[in-house]
Amino acid sequence: MPTLATDIDEIAQRAADAAPVWAATTPRTRAAAMVAAADALVGAQAELVAIAQEETGLSEARLVGELKRTAVQLRLFADIVVEGSYLDVRIDEADAAFALGTRPDLRRYNIPVGPVLNFSASNFPFAFSVAGGDTASALAAGCPVIVKAHSGHPRLSERTAEIVAAALESNGAPTGIVQVISGQQAGVDMLKDPRISAASFTGSTHVGRMLADIAAARPAPIPFYGELGSVNPAFITRAAVAEDASSLVDGFVASISGSAGQLCTKPGFLFVPVGHNLDSRLVDSAEPIAEHRLLNPGIAEGYRERRDVILGTAGVTPVVEGSLRIDDDGQGWATPTIVRVSASDLLLHRERLIDEAFGPLSVLVEYDDEESLVPLADELFEGNLTGTIHAGSEEDSAPLRSLIGWITRHAGRAVFGGWPTGVAVTLAQQHGGPWPATTNDSSTSVGGAAISRFLRPVSYQDVPQRLLPEPLRDDNPWGVPQERNPAGRSTSWGEAYRTAS
Amino acid sequence: MPTLATDIDEIAQRAADAAPVWAATTPRTRAAAMVAAADALVGAQAELVAIAQEETGLSEARLVGELKRTAVQLRLFADIVVEGSYLDVRIDEADAAFALGTRPDLRRYNIPVGPVLNFSASNFPFAFSVAGGDTASALAAGCPVIVKAHSGHPRLSERTAEIVAAALESNGAPTGIVQVISGQQAGVDMLKDPRISAASFTGSTHVGRMLADIAAARPAPIPFYGELGSVNPAFITRAAVAEDASSLVDGFVASISGSAGQLCTKPGFLFVPVGHNLDSRLVDSAEPIAEHRLLNPGIAEGYRERRDVILGTAGVTPVVEGSLRIDDDGQGWATPTIVRVSASDLLLHRERLIDEAFGPLSVLVEYDDEESLVPLADELFEGNLTGTIHAGSEEDSAPLRSLIGWITRHAGRAVFGGWPTGVAVTLAQQHGGPWPATTNDSSTSVGGAAISRFLRPVSYQDVPQRLLPEPLRDDNPWGVPQERNPAGRSTSWGEAYRTAS
Repeated sequence: MPTLATDIDEIAQRAADAAPVWAATTPRTRAAAMVAAADALVGAQAELVAIAQEETGLSEARLVGELKRTAVQLRLFADIVVEGSYLDVRIDEADAAFALGTRPDLRRYNIPVGPVLNFSASNFPFAFSVAGGDTASALAAGCPVIVKAHSGHPRLSERTAEIVAAALESNGAPTGIVQVISGQQAGVDMLKDPRISAASFTGSTHVGRMLADIAAARPAPIPFYGELGSVNPAFITRAAVAEDASSLVDGFVASISGSAGQLCTKPGFLFVPVGHNLDSRLVDSAEPIAEHRLLNPGIAEGYRERRDVILGTAGVTPVVEGSLRIDDDGQGWATPTIVRVSASDLLLHRERLIDEAFGPLSVLVEYDDEESLVPLADELFEGNLTGTIHAGSEEDSAPLRSLIGWITRHAGRAVFGGWPTGVAVTLAQQHGGPWPATTNDSSTSVGGAAISRFLRPVSYQDVPQRLLPEPLRDDNPWGVPQERNPAGRSTSWGEAYRTAS
Repeated sequence: MPTLATDIDEIAQRAADAAPVWAATTPRTRAAAMVAAADALVGAQAELVAIAQEETGLSEARLVGELKRTAVQLRLFADIVVEGSYLDVRIDEADAAFALGTRPDLRRYNIPVGPVLNFSASNFPFAFSVAGGDTASALAAGCPVIVKAHSGHPRLSERTAEIVAAALESNGAPTGIVQVISGQQAGVDMLKDPRISAASFTGSTHVGRMLADIAAARPAPIPFYGELGSVNPAFITRAAVAEDASSLVDGFVASISGSAGQLCTKPGFLFVPVGHNLDSRLVDSAEPIAEHRLLNPGIAEGYRERRDVILGTAGVTPVVEGSLRIDDDGQGWATPTIVRVSASDLLLHRERLIDEAFGPLSVLVEYDDEESLVPLADELFEGNLTGTIHAGSEEDSAPLRSLIGWITRHAGRAVFGGWPTGVAVTLAQQHGGPWPATTNDSSTSVGGAAISRFLRPVSYQDVPQRLLPEPLRDDNPWGVPQERNPAGRSTSWGEAYRTAS
């Protein structure tokens, strides 16, 4: 894969040249090209999954499912492109009686920002990598994409790019629609290139912050959408434990051990009432789980360090000790580790304990009463991707409502009676939360709303019909939703809400 | 006004305490409070306009109009709050047949980000100051506001805050809903305060960049929406000159001289065809215009410097020399200055000439043929708020289409057959463009879409109806638009766009 400065320049120029061509495609052409890319990925499943297994250690079942998800994402965005509400078309009719003097004809819609740079993730070699959600949403917005491949799966990245670019280019997309670069320096150089208009990232808080700072410090700053770390606190009420302890335990263990816990939505802290009596169930549920390889030696070493810190902290007791072994070649193999700690010990040792453990480890936090949960959470946590509650099926109480409120103020998704892993790819999904969960909590990196990251509005004032873009024309040839604001309305603005005074 | 560190802490805490209370108001309560604020401003018109005239030197007519605009903005946003589409409610029904395995019930909407800090502008003492568009849109979003008053109109800022806060607080808003601080250091300290969730700014590129960098460098970065400088290039085709030279000249002169040219959308460069023969018309139109005071001594001095640089540049010829005198107390008084320069001299001396002249000055640029306009514009300009075209009434040509395309790539609003000053406050307005026009070109600071700057999405997964917020409930008590995504659809995503292969 290209890494030299001259390559960077050529790749950026190809993306810049592709941008106006791709932006000018009709919705159906753009959608058809994206569906062709989805089909091509599925068609190459055997080859791609085999490479991915070797490079990441993830299971075949997981990778087949992830490839399917990646194809479904592309197809979802094909529908979104044609449906057209992402364009947010607003038409203000000219209005001679406008409250502030004659109003011109104004028409506003969203246009693509230009070439997007996407830093891909280690833990989703398909769904957050070359053809993943960031790429699909940028392509749908009308932007060419340059992917900085993750060093954990270089061959897969290159092969995926070949397949996707060929499918797109033979279905109406310009040369340079999807390109791949590799190496940290190449990524930084590209992020600084003036031809890049926006960037997305999935990875650690440390690297994400470094890149966000680079994007903000450019002569012309660009938006940087980083999905960083999250510990995803989960809370179980006493009523929930009483109702169905065994489903709770099985669901929790599945959520922390799937993909060896290497998921950004893994619940890292589970608040349980003192006297929960779940220890033996946890052991029974976790012990049969086989060793799972960790993604790469760097992650194995990071997990070993975090796990040692946690196990070595005063007040921390192993419930399920679990295992971690690291081969001579640095690859790590792990089974789930579950520890418990009292709320007061967690408060005392929060500097050591509150941090993401990227692997199959979670911390049970024993609390005394439900009124203490919000004050505890306020003390312990910054922003998160998710927060989870398990309550009794008919439970309703002030502390419960207060806890839901706390989650929505500090996370992007509130999960009730389930687990945060397994993020649905759909229109109402929100994958993104307050710092440090993301650099920018007004957006999502999963689901239909992800397209908004790569759009910019522009208004046309009194432009004749013959010179307007299709979505803004009165004859609306693409059939997109148009929100019309008729003349004459401005004088009644607010009148209905005028108080008696 | 409060300026000390202890005040900053108290003010930030009051805003933080007000945030959940204001966020929890019903749409009608929030709207009624905003309309009461609008009414209170209009009721105090005589007092407020008198203070504003003295502090800014703007004319009574202009200030009366601006106060009306400020009230209309508050009323527009009251309607937007109740209408509810800004909440972007999306409901995914639970779907056992979802393409990627069972989908939970997911419901997403926008919530307020929290306390907003608004740096107000010198040139709009009402409409971009204490009760201006940034404040109105933040209040509508459900956020308390702290305004850093502009030093150019301190008494007006304080009095406006008293009136608006009293009206809001006696109509259901919490204490601390709108507060004012003053002084650059207080503004910087507040911008760094962890209780501030977003900031907006209208002012110079230099100060805007400094503040944007501070916002990005915080331990927890926050979005910073800065509206900075713009030179707003305008282009007149040969056909337009032939059709109606005199209206063109009168419109142009009015646009550059209104409010003494101290508007961010003033057309700073007007491209005219060689042989335009407009000089004597420009003189006739501009010479009767009376001297207008500039806003403050700092702006007067800045205008003197820019004007001297422009008049002293090789190749620049005055068409209307205009005047500038500065009193002993530093106040400046000006009449319009219009100069011309050839396209080639502008290219040669662009370092001196391409910059905002904040005052009643504009540069005519004489071009040879319309094919040269896009290449010229590419060489000369970065991002702008607006770009303007005057063409013949039936004109259509490749260069004309190419020029519209150039404007939409480099500006937020394309104006056709009019002038960019006089920004309509309405739903389809876009006031914001690529850097350095704004720090963040995905948003607007004028019009209904301005509300989106102060919102953040959150999803609720499988939360029981009784615990959901009103906008997400099936019984929809607020009657807001809900976009429902029914079960069973995912399997057809993209199918309609599958190519023959």
